[in-house]
Amino acid sequence: MNHEIRLASRPTGFPEATNFNLVETPIPEIGEGEVLVRNVYMSVDPSMRGRMNDVRSYVPPFQLGRPLEGRAVGQVERSRHADFAVGDYVAGSQGWRGYDAAEGSRLTRIDATTAPLSAHLGVLGGTGFTAYVGLLDIGRPKPGETVFVSGAAGGVGTVVGQIAKLMGCYVAGSAGSDAKVAFLREELGFDAAFNYRTVDLGRALREACPRGVDVYFDNVGGAHLQAALAQMNTFGRISLCGAISQYNDATPPPGPSNLVNAIIRRLTMTGFIIVDHADRRPDFLRDMSAWLRDGRVKNHQTVVQGIENAPAAFMGMLRGENMGKMLVQLSPEG
Amino acid sequence: MNHEIRLASRPTGFPEATNFNLVETPIPEIGEGEVLVRNVYMSVDPSMRGRMNDVRSYVPPFQLGRPLEGRAVGQVERSRHADFAVGDYVAGSQGWRGYDAAEGSRLTRIDATTAPLSAHLGVLGGTGFTAYVGLLDIGRPKPGETVFVSGAAGGVGTVVGQIAKLMGCYVAGSAGSDAKVAFLREELGFDAAFNYRTVDLGRALREACPRGVDVYFDNVGGAHLQAALAQMNTFGRISLCGAISQYNDATPPPGPSNLVNAIIRRLTMTGFIIVDHADRRPDFLRDMSAWLRDGRVKNHQTVVQGIENAPAAFMGMLRGENMGKMLVQLSPEG
Repeated sequence: MNHEIRLASRPTGFPEATNFNLVETPIPEIGEGEVLVRNVYMSVDPSMRGRMNDVRSYVPPFQLGRPLEGRAVGQVERSRHADFAVGDYVAGSQGWRGYDAAEGSRLTRIDATTAPLSAHLGVLGGTGFTAYVGLLDIGRPKPGETVFVSGAAGGVGTVVGQIAKLMGCYVAGSAGSDAKVAFLREELGFDAAFNYRTVDLGRALREACPRGVDVYFDNVGGAHLQAALAQMNTFGRISLCGAISQYNDATPPPGPSNLVNAIIRRLTMTGFIIVDHADRRPDFLRDMSAWLRDGRVKNHQTVVQGIENAPAAFMGMLRGENMGKMLVQLSPEG
Repeated sequence: MNHEIRLASRPTGFPEATNFNLVETPIPEIGEGEVLVRNVYMSVDPSMRGRMNDVRSYVPPFQLGRPLEGRAVGQVERSRHADFAVGDYVAGSQGWRGYDAAEGSRLTRIDATTAPLSAHLGVLGGTGFTAYVGLLDIGRPKPGETVFVSGAAGGVGTVVGQIAKLMGCYVAGSAGSDAKVAFLREELGFDAAFNYRTVDLGRALREACPRGVDVYFDNVGGAHLQAALAQMNTFGRISLCGAISQYNDATPPPGPSNLVNAIIRRLTMTGFIIVDHADRRPDFLRDMSAWLRDGRVKNHQTVVQGIENAPAAFMGMLRGENMGKMLVQLSPEG
């Protein structure tokens, strides 16, 4: 049998278990041009929270009573598409279900010999690509500059920090637990890190970045953005990637009261979404594959087992329970 | 005799007459390399309000008991600098006084035959240069796009609107009186304009810009920035030039609660200060001189007479009493 997670109701505020429905369905038949994929890993992403609201955005909202969607990697079990053979590993948007009858044209074949399968949802997937473009193209750090990343222990944050170190930057990060702070300092080589839940954010950032901040990679919004604006250097760049601190607010909180610093210090703040940057994908794959091979970037992840735990994994990610990329494993790799 | 305006005390909140001191002084002697300038016009600028606070910024604060400074144009009465002869017209930072013993090296000679003298503080001065760089380099409008400018009837706003029309854009503006709105529509050829004091700002902007906003030139900050963020099109640009709505607030108000739109719509928000863009000055002077000559851009100004009225002119500018550039005339032109 197959299992899928459907959107039972739209969350108001922080999601609850009752917003999700685990449904048993038959393993689907495939039509011409389709591929039966057994999902192995699926991604839970902050941006999924926005799609649970019934609002127009850059992607359509999830539909009530329909399975959720998200990136997943899996193995081909049957194929009616010439490009895919049984046993191939593939990536696509067929998450939140055990099996999917996926259109072959919407799948990408994965070389599972060069990197762990799950890395294709992490450093080699949209997560790593987001970090790459958001840091290098939007933030444009120069060697010796200071990069500050919030949500630094998360999927995107861990990759941002590692690339920034590679670029010869001084790297500081914030995270939500002392264990994460230790992980950032000791595993990822951050020059400075702090637990934003236990400090005065403004003072901690000043101490972590004594020469100011040249590039702020914002995963968080809210108080972090305010603190960063206070610490930015002249001609600094702010890469607006996410605002996870406020995705669950029924009413959006006020913005930073020091936005005028953007004028006084001549800052550039740029929002971006990775789908606009497909032209950079070949560069990303070339660079990131090399960095992975050399061990200069590592893939960090937290894996929750079983589709029945996918809603809990998603909610846990929103609460910051993951170190590195949060994934759900749906079936064995082999 | 000479007169100068000194900073008597630092304003808290909106400036008052008592913050300024009109002082009679002797006409200064000039030393080697100096020039005695009789000021004809001086500029009162929003940015002067920030310099009245005792805070570190990109320019040092005004000093208590010392004359204020600002751009002025005047005529050389005596000269001990080889580049300047009696009768020459010059521009410099010697404002807020009738006569100044100015270092010749800090003055620029003006050709008073091609444009009115006062235009060198308006469309041909820092005001026009700010509009030129902020619109063309920061906003990067394309023909057919929608440009919205707040404070549209002010010194910078009137030039932004005229250049945007030249570029083939649809141009909308906000201003603080019905007379200004009529001026924008009838004199400057704005496609849409509204009086922000008498409307619902969000709705008025939606109606003024039915195809959304591609470039927002922000002179105002606050509620205007929030309204613009709600109306921006994907890949829109926000040129952060000023935030006059909050320069007199003792405590800065919260920022826009919809800053997350910068991510969803992939916006770029860039603060700028004209002194960083000296490399564009030759282009600006070439283009603006041509536009003035062709009558495609006009110099609009409000002139207050007499140095004793300079503080009132400055405060009036902060209240929006000017149409076009606010100037003070200190002596006859000829």
